[in-house]
Amino acid sequence: MSTASAPPRYTDLLTRLPATVPFVGPETQERARGAGFDARLGANESVFGPSPRAIAEAAKDAWMYGDPEGFALRSALASHHDVPIEAIVLGEGIDGLLGYLVRMLVAQGDAVVTSDGAYPTFNYHVAGFGGTLHKVPYKGDAEDPEALIAKAAEVDAKMIYIANPDNPMGSWHDAARMADMIDALPEGTVLALDEAYVDTAPPEAVLPLDLGHPRVIRFRTFSKAYGLAGLRVGYALAHPDFIAAFNRIRNHFGMGRLAQAGALAALQDQDYLHATVARIAKARDRIAQIARDNGLTPLPSATNFVTVDCGADGDFARAVLARLVARGIFVRMPFVAPQDRCIRISCGTDADLDRLADALPLALAEAR
Amino acid sequence: MSTASAPPRYTDLLTRLPATVPFVGPETQERARGAGFDARLGANESVFGPSPRAIAEAAKDAWMYGDPEGFALRSALASHHDVPIEAIVLGEGIDGLLGYLVRMLVAQGDAVVTSDGAYPTFNYHVAGFGGTLHKVPYKGDAEDPEALIAKAAEVDAKMIYIANPDNPMGSWHDAARMADMIDALPEGTVLALDEAYVDTAPPEAVLPLDLGHPRVIRFRTFSKAYGLAGLRVGYALAHPDFIAAFNRIRNHFGMGRLAQAGALAALQDQDYLHATVARIAKARDRIAQIARDNGLTPLPSATNFVTVDCGADGDFARAVLARLVARGIFVRMPFVAPQDRCIRISCGTDADLDRLADALPLALAEAR
Repeated sequence: MSTASAPPRYTDLLTRLPATVPFVGPETQERARGAGFDARLGANESVFGPSPRAIAEAAKDAWMYGDPEGFALRSALASHHDVPIEAIVLGEGIDGLLGYLVRMLVAQGDAVVTSDGAYPTFNYHVAGFGGTLHKVPYKGDAEDPEALIAKAAEVDAKMIYIANPDNPMGSWHDAARMADMIDALPEGTVLALDEAYVDTAPPEAVLPLDLGHPRVIRFRTFSKAYGLAGLRVGYALAHPDFIAAFNRIRNHFGMGRLAQAGALAALQDQDYLHATVARIAKARDRIAQIARDNGLTPLPSATNFVTVDCGADGDFARAVLARLVARGIFVRMPFVAPQDRCIRISCGTDADLDRLADALPLALAEAR
Repeated sequence: MSTASAPPRYTDLLTRLPATVPFVGPETQERARGAGFDARLGANESVFGPSPRAIAEAAKDAWMYGDPEGFALRSALASHHDVPIEAIVLGEGIDGLLGYLVRMLVAQGDAVVTSDGAYPTFNYHVAGFGGTLHKVPYKGDAEDPEALIAKAAEVDAKMIYIANPDNPMGSWHDAARMADMIDALPEGTVLALDEAYVDTAPPEAVLPLDLGHPRVIRFRTFSKAYGLAGLRVGYALAHPDFIAAFNRIRNHFGMGRLAQAGALAALQDQDYLHATVARIAKARDRIAQIARDNGLTPLPSATNFVTVDCGADGDFARAVLARLVARGIFVRMPFVAPQDRCIRISCGTDADLDRLADALPLALAEAR
C-alpha cells in the first residue's frame, strides 16, 4: 500500500485560500534587486528607534519564557491609560490581535465591513476564516464612517474595521465624529478601531478611552512612535468581558519575555516618546516640503508618514515608486484607485530625507 | 434604541470554548505567593542562557519589522540541516506553529490523536478549532507509537501528535521505532513530530531528516538548548508542499526582527550550543543524584529536565511539588495518572541545584 503519496487533508476552507502575502517585505525587494536600500521609508517604522532603555531591558532574561499574563506590561498600560488591567490584552502586534479577533467573531460566510484600500492584513484574516468582506470607498482620502455604518447595517456585519488615523492616507477624524460612529453602531456589529498611529495624532483626533461599550475594541502598538517594530508588541483595549474572550484562543506564550520587557521600558520612557513625536513632526514637514518642491501635493498627516499625491493616475504613481525603489529608496503606496495616485513616505532621518530629496526629482523625470 | 448593551456575536465555536490557560506561568505563582522563586526549574528553559552573540545581534535594528520571509534565518537553517529553504517555516515558537497546523487541518468534529498526558497546548489548539481529541495512554512512561497509529486508523484521524524526546517524561524512542511509526501512518493522517528536545537527545534517538513524506512535519525550537525562550522562535521542517500551505494563514509579520536575528546568531554559535548541552548533561546527572539521595527514582532523560518518580501516587507528588514551590523552587509535574506520581525538574545552575538539594528532603518530609 503506497500511502506516503497522499497530501495532508486540509480543511475545505484552507484548500480554497490563496497563498497570499499581505505585504511584500522590503527584504524581498532587496533580494530581488541584489542590493540593500539606502533609505527605508516604506514600512512606517520609526527610524528614530526605541528608547535605549527598552533594549537594555529587553536583553535581560532572554532564557525565560514571557509571563503568559503579561502582568507587568499590562499593569503599566492600565496605569498609563487609567483603565482596569482586565481591559487590556497583549498580542504579537496588532496583526496578531486582529487575527484573534476575526477568529472569535467570523465563521464561514459571516459579513465584515471595511474600506476599499484599508489595511490588507485585516482582509487577509477575514478571508482566512472564511468571512465575506464588504468594502465601501474612501471619501475625500479618508475612511467614511457613515458609509461603513450603513453598509454594516445593510449586510448585518459581525464587525467593521476602521483606522483612525488612517493608513495609507494619513488622514483622521476628530473624536466627535468617531463618537457619532460608535453611537450609530448596529446592535450586532463590533467596531475594530485601529489606533496604531494615535501617538502621532493631534489631540482632537483621539477619542477618549471610554471602555464601557461592549462591542468597541481599540488597538495600539509599540511598532510605530515607540520604535519597537522589531519586537512586535500590540495591545487591545475594550470592555473586560470582550477582552476575556481572547483568553479562549490566544497563544498565551506567543509574546516573548524580551518583547514584554522592551515595551514596558519604552512605555516608562515617555520623554523619549515625546522627543520622537517631535522628530516625526519635523520629518513630516520636511517630506511635505520636498513634495512641494517637486510640484507634488502632500496630504495632511496625523501619522509617522506622509502620503504624497503625485498628481496623475495610479500608473504614474507606480512608476514614480518603482524609480525610487530602483534608486534605493524603499517606499510604498496605496493599492486601490483613486488613492493609488499617491505614494506613501515614512518619516526618516535627515540623511534619509536628503536621499529622498536627491532621488525624487530624478524618479519623477524618469516616470514622465 | 439601546444598542450598546449587546455583546459581540462570537462564533458558535468560541461560545463553547472555555477560557483555558494551557499552563499557569511561574509569574502567576510568584504573584500568588507574594515572593519570587529562588530557583526557576519548572519550565524547561535553559538557565545557561543563549550565546552572548545572540543578544548582541538581537539588539540591533529594533525599529524595523522582521523580514516576513525570514530569509536569513531560514537560509542558515537550510544549510545547517542540509534541506531546501522551502522545507522550513518559522513561527512564534512551536506553540504558534502547532496552532497554525491545527487550523490548516482540523475543522469542526475532525478527529485528532495524542497521548493522555502529552503537551496540553496542542490539545488547547485542537479544542480551539473544534477538533475531537482521542487520547491513548502512555506505556512504560513513554508515548506509544503503535497505539497512536492504531487509534488514528480507528477514528480516521486528521493528525497524530507525538513528541520525541517526550515531555513531560523525558523518555525517547530510537530512530528505527519512529521510522516504523511513519511507515505505518494511515493515508489520511498527518504526523506532527515535536522535536523540541532533540538538541539534548542521544544520536540514536534522532530520526534522519528525510522530508520526502508528504504528511510528516517536525518541529524544532530555539527555546530549549539554545536558551532563547524569551524570543519565541520555533520552526517546522516538512515537504515544501506542506510548508507552503502555512503561507495561506500565518501571521507573516508575527516574528519580530530581534527574534530572527537572535536565533540566527545562536544557530551560528554551535560551540556555545555544544557547551550548553554538556552543562545540561551534567545538571541532569546532578538532579538524578539528588533524587536518589532522597530515596526517589530519576527517570532516564533525553531532555533538559529530569522527571523524578516520587514513589507514591499523584496526591503525594502534588504535595511534594507544593512544598517545593512554597520553598521558592519552581518545578512542574505531569497532569495525568500514572505519570503524575512524578515531578519534573528542569536543569539549573549549580546554585539552583544546591537549593533543590536543600529543599527536597524538607519538602518530602512535609509531604509525608
